[in-house]
Amino acid sequence: MDFLVRIAVTLPPELPVERVERLVAAERARGAELKADGTIQRIWRIPGGMQNVGIWSAADATALHDALMSLPLARYMKAEVTPLAVHPLE
Amino acid sequence: MDFLVRIAVTLPPELPVERVERLVAAERARGAELKADGTIQRIWRIPGGMQNVGIWSAADATALHDALMSLPLARYMKAEVTPLAVHPLE
Amino acid sequence: MDFLVRIAVTLPPELPVERVERLVAAERARGAELKADGTIQRIWRIPGGMQNVGIWSAADATALHDALMSLPLARYMKAEVTPLAVHPLE
Amino acid sequence: MDFLVRIAVTLPPELPVERVERLVAAERARGAELKADGTIQRIWRIPGGMQNVGIWSAADATALHDALMSLPLARYMKAEVTPLAVHPLE
Amino acid sequence: MDFLVRIAVTLPPELPVERVERLVAAERARGAELKADGTIQRIWRIPGGMQNVGIWSAADATALHDALMSLPLARYMKAEVTPLAVHPLE
Amino acid sequence: MDFLVRIAVTLPPELPVERVERLVAAERARGAELKADGTIQRIWRIPGGMQNVGIWSAADATALHDALMSLPLARYMKAEVTPLAVHPLE
Amino acid sequence: MDFLVRIAVTLPPELPVERVERLVAAERARGAELKADGTIQRIWRIPGGMQNVGIWSAADATALHDALMSLPLARYMKAEVTPLAVHPLE
Amino acid sequence: MDFLVRIAVTLPPELPVERVERLVAAERARGAELKADGTIQRIWRIPGGMQNVGIWSAADATALHDALMSLPLARYMKAEVTPLAVHPLE
Amino acid sequence: MDFLVRIAVTLPPELPVERVERLVAAERARGAELKADGTIQRIWRIPGGMQNVGIWSAADATALHDALMSLPLARYMKAEVTPLAVHPLE
Amino acid sequence: MDFLVRIAVTLPPELPVERVERLVAAERARGAELKADGTIQRIWRIPGGMQNVGIWSAADATALHDALMSLPLARYMKAEVTPLAVHPLE
Repeated sequence: MDFLVRIAVTLPPELPVERVERLVAAERARGAELKADGTIQRIWRIPGGMQNVGIWSAADATALHDALMSLPLARYMKAEVTPLAVHPLE
Repeated sequence: MDFLVRIAVTLPPELPVERVERLVAAERARGAELKADGTIQRIWRIPGGMQNVGIWSAADATALHDALMSLPLARYMKAEVTPLAVHPLE
Repeated sequence: MDFLVRIAVTLPPELPVERVERLVAAERARGAELKADGTIQRIWRIPGGMQNVGIWSAADATALHDALMSLPLARYMKAEVTPLAVHPLE
Repeated sequence: MDFLVRIAVTLPPELPVERVERLVAAERARGAELKADGTIQRIWRIPGGMQNVGIWSAADATALHDALMSLPLARYMKAEVTPLAVHPLE
Repeated sequence: MDFLVRIAVTLPPELPVERVERLVAAERARGAELKADGTIQRIWRIPGGMQNVGIWSAADATALHDALMSLPLARYMKAEVTPLAVHPLE
Repeated sequence: MDFLVRIAVTLPPELPVERVERLVAAERARGAELKADGTIQRIWRIPGGMQNVGIWSAADATALHDALMSLPLARYMKAEVTPLAVHPLE
Repeated sequence: MDFLVRIAVTLPPELPVERVERLVAAERARGAELKADGTIQRIWRIPGGMQNVGIWSAADATALHDALMSLPLARYMKAEVTPLAVHPLE
Repeated sequence: MDFLVRIAVTLPPELPVERVERLVAAERARGAELKADGTIQRIWRIPGGMQNVGIWSAADATALHDALMSLPLARYMKAEVTPLAVHPLE
Repeated sequence: MDFLVRIAVTLPPELPVERVERLVAAERARGAELKADGTIQRIWRIPGGMQNVGIWSAADATALHDALMSLPLARYMKAEVTPLAVHPLE
Repeated sequence: MDFLVRIAVTLPPELPVERVERLVAAERARGAELKADGTIQRIWRIPGGMQNVGIWSAADATALHDALMSLPLARYMKAEVTPLAVHPLE
């Protein structure tokens, strides 16, 4: 089943730069794994900040939650999830 | 998979009373079928208007959409769907 | 360039059923053309009403506007457009 | 009487990890008690963050407030309460 | 149990004046009954339109819903209900 | 003149527990004075957090402001004030 | 006591032009009376539509409600009222 | 002085097609005049509907209001006006 | 030209009391200057917090911005500015 | 392609004044470069705070994102981006 997932990340201003860099690198690595195994089908940046929108694929909402929580930045992100139904044009 | 579905119905003021009564009766009948087959697991009225909230169960968002569109009042309703994941307390 | 487009259709309650059917059929046909020529890359239904979300591809916002306005239901729809930037995971 | 309760938890970023772990464990234990005594009838996670939605049962709003405030994370949570009326389909 | 109920009435502009007058008179009469039997404990107008806010008392949300739906203007009103818990100052 | 006042308190997470306890006790004491002199006519807790709603009575908005600012938690609270007019049912 | 009152008027599109003209003229006349007797202290147009904001003066919210309801366009307007307290700079 | 003006037009569905066409043509003509005399400095369509955003220049808010109200579609439009101050980069 | 300006001040909870007192005194002094030179025409407190609403007069939005930024609390305030046009009743 | 970009900057209150000054100077310098190379076509201050609105020009959303992220204050700003289509009046 597909989900539209919109994620906005807010890093606390007092987080040291090196910590931010390590977190972002870990996030990129975990994202690549989710992309490779088909959980993240497509992903785009929303211009102007640390925001993205993607098409995620998972067995159900529980599997999707686990995938999202596996992201190293999970604690700092706000995710908005919309369940998607098949459209007759597809 | 479970979904939280909140439905608000707005009937156009010009709809004749008998038409409203027939629609509401048909809605009740279709609702009873969805309750009987387990699609609607639980449902409550939100006090003060034609609104309800329920726990719906469907294979995926496509099956849920079909169930919602099968309601006779579908054209007049606004549904807000939240996908639900299993909670460790259950 | 890609755009995330979320469309909600509100048909006036007084529109005769046959008119609605003709409009929806024309919309489906025009949608199929936009899907075939790659303007609509992917499209999903948002469960519970006449709403969809899609990934549209167009040279720029002007071309996207023309494609959206070519839909027979354009007069009755509300479209929310988000410009999309390439994500490093892609 | 039933209530729909939607809870979102926001932990201050400066809270040490061990403190978070202890709080979450205490929350889980108290939640299990409320589940066992029937105050929490059903509960689900909302995918993508520390959010849940549940059906709570209490004598009245005062008893519900006391139950919610007995949660160890109460200070960090925002709860949205909707009173529920019996639906004719039940 | 007490509830804070905020009601806004929107009459369709095409409703004939005599019909409006008859509805408002019936609403006033039913309101007086609910005031007399203690369902409406206190009620105030919100200045500038057909809006009011009141403290309602009912056994539970189901009894409150029935009282609200017994109002002749129910079809034209939007009610916002907040369940109230006892405050230690009372 | 009556006012509907809805208050939400947000304590900064870094406030030491003893400071919180002292502030809450002082708030309770000042609230009792305002209840005794008729400024707070009725007050209820909104279940699930540090929120309340009350009917306040004051000569005008200036007197109401002074009463609200006399609360020890004023610095940490957000108050929403609605002026109330007499309803014909009263 | 002073109130900030923001009014937006929405005329139903099917209202005949002459009816609109008569209503607007009557509104202007009643507005002039309220201006002359000091109920409307100052009033401005908000550019771009049938909206205005004004400083109204009335004994209390009940007197303000009566003044607002005496406007011929009351049925078509939405008023937002903010009670005003004296500022130390005045 | 410059203003950012965002306009959304909503035509009543019952307006006959020829009336719409005549109104749109008149709107285009009046818009061209405002563009020629420098009142509308720049204007863009917001993709997906009858919406635009523009930079308008007028002596003050009163002159801007008069220019906006001179548009034939004024009765059907909603305008959102933001006053603009000079930026040091200009 | 007149502007409606609504200002809400949020002081960071960690600001020492003496610093707050000095800032508020400086704000009061600068406010008195702006009142004396006619920039602030009228100003009121919004009851229940550090909020006010005023009628400001300035040559244009640039002059208004400079006046607002000259306030010692500017860094901690959020201002909402509405441009005002002359109303025919004035 | 043109974009309407509205930016609001929120500096953490604990940022030392000299750091703020250095950041603002760097922001001004980078802004001047983007203005000189035509990325920022026009820019205005929104009166009353650290907010601006501008017309940006970029090949696509990816180029726009890179330009926005090159601003020294990017970490502290919230940008709202609207894609713009050509209007027939231009």
